[in-house]
Amino acid sequence: MKRIGIADTTFARYDMAAAAIDELKNNATGFKIERYTVPGIKDLPCAARRLIDGSCDIIMALGMPGPQPIDKQCAHEASQGLIQVQVLTGVHVIEVFVHEDEADIDDTLRWLANQRSREHAVNVINLLFHPDRLQRQAGTGQREGFEDAETL
Amino acid sequence: MKRIGIADTTFARYDMAAAAIDELKNNATGFKIERYTVPGIKDLPCAARRLIDGSCDIIMALGMPGPQPIDKQCAHEASQGLIQVQVLTGVHVIEVFVHEDEADIDDTLRWLANQRSREHAVNVINLLFHPDRLQRQAGTGQREGFEDAETL
Amino acid sequence: MKRIGIADTTFARYDMAAAAIDELKNNATGFKIERYTVPGIKDLPCAARRLIDGSCDIIMALGMPGPQPIDKQCAHEASQGLIQVQVLTGVHVIEVFVHEDEADIDDTLRWLANQRSREHAVNVINLLFHPDRLQRQAGTGQREGFEDAETL
Amino acid sequence: MKRIGIADTTFARYDMAAAAIDELKNNATGFKIERYTVPGIKDLPCAARRLIDGSCDIIMALGMPGPQPIDKQCAHEASQGLIQVQVLTGVHVIEVFVHEDEADIDDTLRWLANQRSREHAVNVINLLFHPDRLQRQAGTGQREGFEDAETL
Amino acid sequence: MKRIGIADTTFARYDMAAAAIDELKNNATGFKIERYTVPGIKDLPCAARRLIDGSCDIIMALGMPGPQPIDKQCAHEASQGLIQVQVLTGVHVIEVFVHEDEADIDDTLRWLANQRSREHAVNVINLLFHPDRLQRQAGTGQREGFEDAETL
Repeated sequence: MKRIGIADTTFARYDMAAAAIDELKNNATGFKIERYTVPGIKDLPCAARRLIDGSCDIIMALGMPGPQPIDKQCAHEASQGLIQVQVLTGVHVIEVFVHEDEADIDDTLRWLANQRSREHAVNVINLLFHPDRLQRQAGTGQREGFEDAETL
Repeated sequence: MKRIGIADTTFARYDMAAAAIDELKNNATGFKIERYTVPGIKDLPCAARRLIDGSCDIIMALGMPGPQPIDKQCAHEASQGLIQVQVLTGVHVIEVFVHEDEADIDDTLRWLANQRSREHAVNVINLLFHPDRLQRQAGTGQREGFEDAETL
Repeated sequence: MKRIGIADTTFARYDMAAAAIDELKNNATGFKIERYTVPGIKDLPCAARRLIDGSCDIIMALGMPGPQPIDKQCAHEASQGLIQVQVLTGVHVIEVFVHEDEADIDDTLRWLANQRSREHAVNVINLLFHPDRLQRQAGTGQREGFEDAETL
Repeated sequence: MKRIGIADTTFARYDMAAAAIDELKNNATGFKIERYTVPGIKDLPCAARRLIDGSCDIIMALGMPGPQPIDKQCAHEASQGLIQVQVLTGVHVIEVFVHEDEADIDDTLRWLANQRSREHAVNVINLLFHPDRLQRQAGTGQREGFEDAETL
Repeated sequence: MKRIGIADTTFARYDMAAAAIDELKNNATGFKIERYTVPGIKDLPCAARRLIDGSCDIIMALGMPGPQPIDKQCAHEASQGLIQVQVLTGVHVIEVFVHEDEADIDDTLRWLANQRSREHAVNVINLLFHPDRLQRQAGTGQREGFEDAETL
C-alpha cells in the first residue's frame, strides 16, 4: 500500500488539496492519503520532510503565493526548500504553486488552482504507478493548468 | 510536556517575543517556553538549531528586517537558513518577520508586530496540539497581521 | 559495465533525451542507459538523486525552461538542486538546459536542443571514459550548441 | 576555557580582527582566541568550519565586501555559506561585514569598521557568557556601528 | 606529501590551470598536483568534491564565466556549490573566476586570467604552508589580478 502525502496551506485562497485528492482517487486505487496543513508556503518544506519521515512515498506541496515581491521571494525560498528535501531524501515532492497574478479574474484563478492541482495529481499517479506514461510524454510540451505548448 | 523555543533579536524595534509568549499562554497549557535572544535575524537559524538540539518541539523565529536593500537580502538569507534547519531536522520553525517598510507609521508597525506575533503563536499552538484546526482553514486565505484574503 | 542516467521532462518541447541517447551510443560502448522522465525541471534534482541511488555513474539532466521570469527562477532553483546532488554524492550531473528564448525561430530552437544534447553526451562519455580528452580541451572556449568561443 | 575563533581576510582594507580581539579582551577573560586569515570573504565559510572543527565555541567572521555588483553577490554567497555552517554545526558564526559603500569618506569607513567589529565582539561575549544581557535588549533596535534605532 | 587539486573547464578561453600550476611550482615543493578538467563552471563543485574524496588537501577551481545574464547566474550557482563543498568537507576550494566582461580587450583579459590564477596560487601555497603570511596581510586590501586596494 503506497502512501501519498498532501501538504497544503491556510494562506491559499482555494482548497487545492481537495481537488488534488479527488483527482488522485479518480485515477488510481491502492494508496493511502496523509494530509498536512500548515500556515504558509514557507512551512511546506518542513511538512514535506515530516510526511516523508512518516513513510510517504511521494508528496504534493500545494500553495498560492501572493502577487507582491515579498511573496515571490517567499515562493522562491519555499521552492528551494522543497528541492532540498528531495535532494536529501530521494522522495519526489511535486510542487503545485498557483501565483495570484497568473490571472486577473477570480474565476480564472479558481479554475487554474483546480485544474493545475488535478493535472499534477495525475503526474503523481504516473510517477508512482506508471512511469512509462511519463516517458511517452517526454519532450511533448506538457503544461499543468493552462494549455500545453507545441512540440518543436 | 512540550517545549516551544522562542528565538528573537536585539535588532527588532518591538518585543515581538513578549507578545508571542503572552498569546501562547492565552491559548494553551502543558508546554514550557525556552527563549533565546540573538543580535540579528541572520543569527536566528543558529538559534533555532540550538533550541531544537535542546529538545524543543517547535520554534518561533521573530525579527524585524530593515527597509534597505541590504536588509532585504539579510532577511532572504535568514529565511533560507530557517528553512534549511527545518529540512534537516523536521521540526517546524515558524518565521515571524515584520518588515519595517510594511507600514509608514510607527503606530501601525507596532500594531502589526504585536498582531502578527500573536496570530503566529496561535498557528504554533495549532501545529502542536490542534492540526485539525489548520486543516479546517486550508485554502481560506488566512493572513497573519493584516486582514485575511477572500476565498476564491 | 557503467550506468548512465538520463533524466528528462514532459515539459520540454523536444525529445532531448532521444538525441542524447543516440549520441552516447555513437560514441562508446560498454555502458547501460537508465531513463527517468519527470514532469518539469524542478523535478530533475530528485530524479538525479534516485538515478544515483540506483547506481548510475553519471547523469544527464535535460530540460527546456520557458521564457517567462518565473521560468527563469524555476531553472535557477533546479540548477541549484542539481548542484546540491553532486556536492552530496560526488557523482556528475551534466545539466543540459535549452532556454526557449535562446532562439526566435522554432527551427533554430529544435536544432539547438538536438545539438546541445549531443555535444553534452560527448562530454559525458569523456568524463566517464576519456578524461584526458577534456584536459586537452581545457581553456579552449568550448561551447555546447552554438559555435565555440575563440581562445584568448 | 572557551575558544573564540576569529576569521578574517586579506581583502579587507582595515584590520577588523585586531579591533575585535582588543574589544573581546576588554570585556571578558577566561577564553582563548584562535585567528584564521583567508584571502577573501568567500573563503570565510570554510575558515569558520575549520575553526569549529578545531573546537571553537563561537566564531567571528569579519570582512569588507567591495562596492560593485559582483562584490555584493560574493557577500551574499559568503553569508549563505556562513549560515549553512551554523545550521550544520549549531555553533554561532557572527558575521561582521562592512560594505565599502556604507560610507563615502575613508575616515567614516575606518571608524565604522572599528566600531562594528567592537560592538559585535560584545555580542559574542554576551552570547558566550551573558545570554541574559541579550534578552534584556530584545526588541530595542540595537545596531552595530551606526546609531541604534528607536524602539517603536 | 600534500595534494593540491586543480579543477578547470573546457569553456574557459585561457588555460588558467597551466598558469596556476606553474606558479604553484615556483613557490613551493613537497606537494603533488591532481588536475581535473570538466566542461563548464557548473561542473566545478562536483570536480572539487571528487578531488577532495581523492584526498586532496586544498583545491583551486578555475573558470571564465561569460558576459550574459545567464552566465552570471551560472557563476552564482557554481559559487554556491563550491562554498557548499567547503562547508561540508572543511577543505578550502579557492575560486578563481575571471568574468569575460572584466576587460574590453582580449590582451587585458588574457593578462588578467594569467595574473589572477598566479596570485591565487600563492594564496593556496600560503593557506597550505604559510598561514602566518596571510595573517600578516590581514586587512591590507589585497586584490588578485588588478591592483591592490589602499588600506584605510
